[in-house]
Amino acid sequence: MPPSPIRKLVPFAEEAKKKGRKVYHLNIGQPDIKTPEVALEAIRNFDEKVVEYSHSAGKESYRKGLANYYQNIGIDVDFNDIIVTTGGSEALIFAMMTALNPGDEIIIPEPFYTNYNSFSVFSDIKIVPITSKIENDFALPSLSEFENKITDRTKAILVCNPSNPTGSLYSKDELEKLKEIAIKNDLYLISDEVYREFVYDGNTHTSVMQLEGIEEHAILIDSTSKRYSECGTRMGCLVSKNKEIMASALKFAQARLSPPLFGQIAGEASLRTPPTYFTEVYDEYIARRNFVVTELNKIEGVYAPMPKGAFYTIISLPIDDAEHFCQWILEDFSYKNQTVMLAPAAGFYATPGLGKNEVRIAYVLKVEDLKNAVKVIEEALKVYKVES
Amino acid sequence: MPPSPIRKLVPFAEEAKKKGRKVYHLNIGQPDIKTPEVALEAIRNFDEKVVEYSHSAGKESYRKGLANYYQNIGIDVDFNDIIVTTGGSEALIFAMMTALNPGDEIIIPEPFYTNYNSFSVFSDIKIVPITSKIENDFALPSLSEFENKITDRTKAILVCNPSNPTGSLYSKDELEKLKEIAIKNDLYLISDEVYREFVYDGNTHTSVMQLEGIEEHAILIDSTSKRYSECGTRMGCLVSKNKEIMASALKFAQARLSPPLFGQIAGEASLRTPPTYFTEVYDEYIARRNFVVTELNKIEGVYAPMPKGAFYTIISLPIDDAEHFCQWILEDFSYKNQTVMLAPAAGFYATPGLGKNEVRIAYVLKVEDLKNAVKVIEEALKVYKVES
Repeated sequence: MPPSPIRKLVPFAEEAKKKGRKVYHLNIGQPDIKTPEVALEAIRNFDEKVVEYSHSAGKESYRKGLANYYQNIGIDVDFNDIIVTTGGSEALIFAMMTALNPGDEIIIPEPFYTNYNSFSVFSDIKIVPITSKIENDFALPSLSEFENKITDRTKAILVCNPSNPTGSLYSKDELEKLKEIAIKNDLYLISDEVYREFVYDGNTHTSVMQLEGIEEHAILIDSTSKRYSECGTRMGCLVSKNKEIMASALKFAQARLSPPLFGQIAGEASLRTPPTYFTEVYDEYIARRNFVVTELNKIEGVYAPMPKGAFYTIISLPIDDAEHFCQWILEDFSYKNQTVMLAPAAGFYATPGLGKNEVRIAYVLKVEDLKNAVKVIEEALKVYKVES
Repeated sequence: MPPSPIRKLVPFAEEAKKKGRKVYHLNIGQPDIKTPEVALEAIRNFDEKVVEYSHSAGKESYRKGLANYYQNIGIDVDFNDIIVTTGGSEALIFAMMTALNPGDEIIIPEPFYTNYNSFSVFSDIKIVPITSKIENDFALPSLSEFENKITDRTKAILVCNPSNPTGSLYSKDELEKLKEIAIKNDLYLISDEVYREFVYDGNTHTSVMQLEGIEEHAILIDSTSKRYSECGTRMGCLVSKNKEIMASALKFAQARLSPPLFGQIAGEASLRTPPTYFTEVYDEYIARRNFVVTELNKIEGVYAPMPKGAFYTIISLPIDDAEHFCQWILEDFSYKNQTVMLAPAAGFYATPGLGKNEVRIAYVLKVEDLKNAVKVIEEALKVYKVES
């Protein structure tokens, strides 16, 4: 696997810090939001004497709790339709390894979450990208574009909804059309919905599991990392009503014995998080999003689409080479002894040459910090343009 | 992946329990030993506000602690030579995926840990077994046998030392010879040493990392699961001085973001486990081993080699088909309303037809329970022989 453009920047960020500079990290999805107290309390109250393996599919009580969570948001699943995984990452690997054979193709709208590339290397499958464009605010490409990409090796379509890295949200209508393609061509429709709770402006989220008649084709990828700001627990799950997929995924789950016990305890307790927690988190992200998008769009030559979900947006800059800019800003630029770390968007595209003037922004910092970070970008662009 | 012979027995064990029978589980490696109090205490004292991702290679403080643990047992490694993994399972997957390419071959003495098969499916590599025999107490096969198996696709040899499932322990001499083969044929020597602390009768354990001149070829697989009886934490690590292997493994580690945080906290605290803990555990296992092996060998037609390490032994029974016997004993037999679950050994062999009259015994139960379990086996064999 080639090193991602973000990884290459890490030493430059470290250097900048050594120089005493404040580095605002707009590059990562590690929220600063507190983990729900109920989850931390459950960990502190652990009173077993032996930290034993759990069931390979996850503790039954946790799976039943998850089924109840899904039922409450209109997703009709039973605990047997759920396999608890070590993060959404493992759920994605299990999904790819069970739904596709080595050499098979999976269609994914780009830009997409970079690690999909790594998981495809794990699974020895081929990603076929289909480009969504910043000028359309990264809307889902037309269905004919999907159909054009289907070959006899195509086995699945994977969408991230709402999307990391673009913040796009796919409507029920769009999902219905993907459903039609999936059924017509006998493909799996894998939906990564780990940002489900982060949907703004009164939009509603449609899960792949809510589409009727697609039960045998639908695979849901989930994670508690962002929902409860507990990334470190490494708790995810794979959900499907397709018995064959579940039986095959269970074998992979059995091979690695069990998901982490403490993460399951935290995850199960998190299901009791009071609704006020989400209101506060929601208000915080709305404020951050509104601020950062508005302010970025005020900078000459910058275009930032308004994301409908998640906590990312991909923006275009008045530059030619974002990788160079991102390194330069860390290495050679500072404004009032501050700089920023951005993620060059090229790393989120599979098609070479795309996204060269784009960067991904994660608005996971306080508004006050975002204000400083945006100012750094504005000042940097003034100098960078002159220099280059 | 085909279902393992043990999995197939699970419903029969459940049925037996429903009939009110006590089932002694000699089939699994879940010890009943208590997790060290220092580990549980560290979990109960968790006082961070956000459960964040850690470094993809594991928390630096934990890796430094691990390096110190290795130094203390005569394994000279630095924290940069260590990547913390989600259990030994993930370390094995990383090792296979980095040391071998799809289609490459790995030589493994059989019988071996069944999940090596699953991990080879993950990695799309081919396991080439080399048979060790119960009549030699599962000693390492001769080196000429290894050399006979080497082709131009062979990239690694994997040993489990001490061995699950046989309890064999490889001597320094044997390892030196494996080292010669590895160097001569430019192979990786992967050593799964998760049972390192379980070595009996005054024998000493030799790690692959202690062999001189093999630094570029040696990969150590480790786990805290058995050492501290904390299987549920899912904490393992991959250790190597080969920079290329480590760089490649790190990319896989980055793709899944980070190992579980709570497991790392428990693992780091476990490094402070007082020596008395191990003395007690050791005495307990010695007593169990001595009891179960002695008693099993008293049964007519049974041969149980004396294991030198780990907490397993593979024994031969006076029967033709252990899979049938293991199912029968759960389904149709009971002695004083008790029965046993055993692991048919065929599942640990890659060569079809081997191990048909063998079962693996995990001596992870109290002596009192082992006594009852052995009695059940003795009585069952009397009836089974008559019936069949």
